[in-house]
Amino acid sequence: MKVYNSTLPHCLCIADLGCSSGTNSLLVLTEIIDTIELARNRLGHPSLEYQVALNDLTGNDFNTIFKSLPALYEKLKKEKGENFGPCFISGLPGSFIGRLFPCKTIHFVHSSYSVHWLSQKDFSVFLKSRYDELVPGGHMVMTMLGNKSEDPFSRDFCTLMELLAKSLKDLVSKGLIEEAKVDSFNLPLYAPRLEELRTIIERDGLFDLEKLEIFDVNWDPNDDNHNEGFMFDNISSARNAVRCVRAVTESMFVHQFGEAIIDNLYQRYTEIIAEHLSKENAREKSKYVSLLISMKRK
Amino acid sequence: MKVYNSTLPHCLCIADLGCSSGTNSLLVLTEIIDTIELARNRLGHPSLEYQVALNDLTGNDFNTIFKSLPALYEKLKKEKGENFGPCFISGLPGSFIGRLFPCKTIHFVHSSYSVHWLSQKDFSVFLKSRYDELVPGGHMVMTMLGNKSEDPFSRDFCTLMELLAKSLKDLVSKGLIEEAKVDSFNLPLYAPRLEELRTIIERDGLFDLEKLEIFDVNWDPNDDNHNEGFMFDNISSARNAVRCVRAVTESMFVHQFGEAIIDNLYQRYTEIIAEHLSKENAREKSKYVSLLISMKRK
Repeated sequence: MKVYNSTLPHCLCIADLGCSSGTNSLLVLTEIIDTIELARNRLGHPSLEYQVALNDLTGNDFNTIFKSLPALYEKLKKEKGENFGPCFISGLPGSFIGRLFPCKTIHFVHSSYSVHWLSQKDFSVFLKSRYDELVPGGHMVMTMLGNKSEDPFSRDFCTLMELLAKSLKDLVSKGLIEEAKVDSFNLPLYAPRLEELRTIIERDGLFDLEKLEIFDVNWDPNDDNHNEGFMFDNISSARNAVRCVRAVTESMFVHQFGEAIIDNLYQRYTEIIAEHLSKENAREKSKYVSLLISMKRK
Repeated sequence: MKVYNSTLPHCLCIADLGCSSGTNSLLVLTEIIDTIELARNRLGHPSLEYQVALNDLTGNDFNTIFKSLPALYEKLKKEKGENFGPCFISGLPGSFIGRLFPCKTIHFVHSSYSVHWLSQKDFSVFLKSRYDELVPGGHMVMTMLGNKSEDPFSRDFCTLMELLAKSLKDLVSKGLIEEAKVDSFNLPLYAPRLEELRTIIERDGLFDLEKLEIFDVNWDPNDDNHNEGFMFDNISSARNAVRCVRAVTESMFVHQFGEAIIDNLYQRYTEIIAEHLSKENAREKSKYVSLLISMKRK
């Protein structure tokens, strides 16, 4: 990762967009800091101050992230020693469809599996906002859900969503949730094709594309090496897959259907995925497409 | 309020230290922005970006503040029109005894009734940290509890605390809380004299003192004009006084004694204060001393 062109500024400002509130939020951050510190040591640059903004929507549970910060600061201090930091981590609530930071104040933007919540039209607003915020030469690295097919409802990711819809319908038939609530529910997800992204980025002309890659991720990300046979049985893999989907969908389901049915819903979803995985060849195909985008602000 | 020496920077960075999580956090902020915008219009300066950091300890309920931000943004947009902002508000958890921001990035620091949680020794660390963070010429305005007497356990503020201690003892005698927990409880509050602050600030030599004032605040801040007679009866005033003390002490009491006894504690405290206020001349003396400090970073 090349964070900044040649010399480093006195203070590096990093933004993580769509940080959520699990342990992953801070995992990525430590990876980023590790990489920058390696580069810094290689350049023989004096210690840097880090200013990190963790961003997500207003309803995100920032309190939980904040509670884990003292342990992170302790860890960084211990691992990196005296010649590091200081590092200041804040929470910034708000939508990344629009501005989040003052002009030209950010050096590096990261976003993991969040940008697919943008519609096609929003993506340009997203790019322009980040362009305004990043310093010239600043970088942005993102992963997001993608699609290999021209059909936005392509098979592999959508199967996972179809099975989720099936779980919801099951709860309707048991009288646990109202059918009207399921009908009015919308997961505002858009998984673009690689070429679609390239076209928008090149047309808008605000960033130089440095990397644009497509890759598969197994529904069960803990069992992503099935050439040598699967490590886990169908029910365990279904559980792992549901854990991932739950991490990104739970708050929306709670908002629409209430807290009470949530465990029940994901339990049923696990059973339905396990059942699906037991079908012939289903397991080999149980992948979703991801995109990796790395770009540099002009 | 003079925010910045003569010309304004492109983006103004404001920090509120000890913001807590009530509605007051954002009230002060809008006052600050109003004042700056007045100055900006007078100077004929183009619109400014605002970057605001709300700081409090890690356990503070930032989620609640964040939930009220969309309404604040809406209000600012409506009141100030197009030629304003944008304004970006973040939460920054951590202790202000030490650094919270990168070097020379903050233009204005505000703190309302928080700095008295510093010990005498900590105050120098506090000043040095703010000195590092503020731009040269940046300002800091604070209010805090003070003391007129050489005795740190001087009468007026301490009466309020003594009555609180009495309420705790009442709950012990009723078997609702353990005596040992009361004995081991410490409110780490230090209300300095004006001269004490002046001595430290001048000795450390990092800030020019622009204003240092002492003033009285009635225990019942809603009834602060007793020359014309009190507006409220003793029980109403006791309720108002308790509301203020509760706002700053509740989290510590919950931590030490648990959630369950809290309402009971402040109810008893209200009764005890009302009883105290009914004594001869007690009401006229029911004030605590406050300090106002305004200084400019050298």
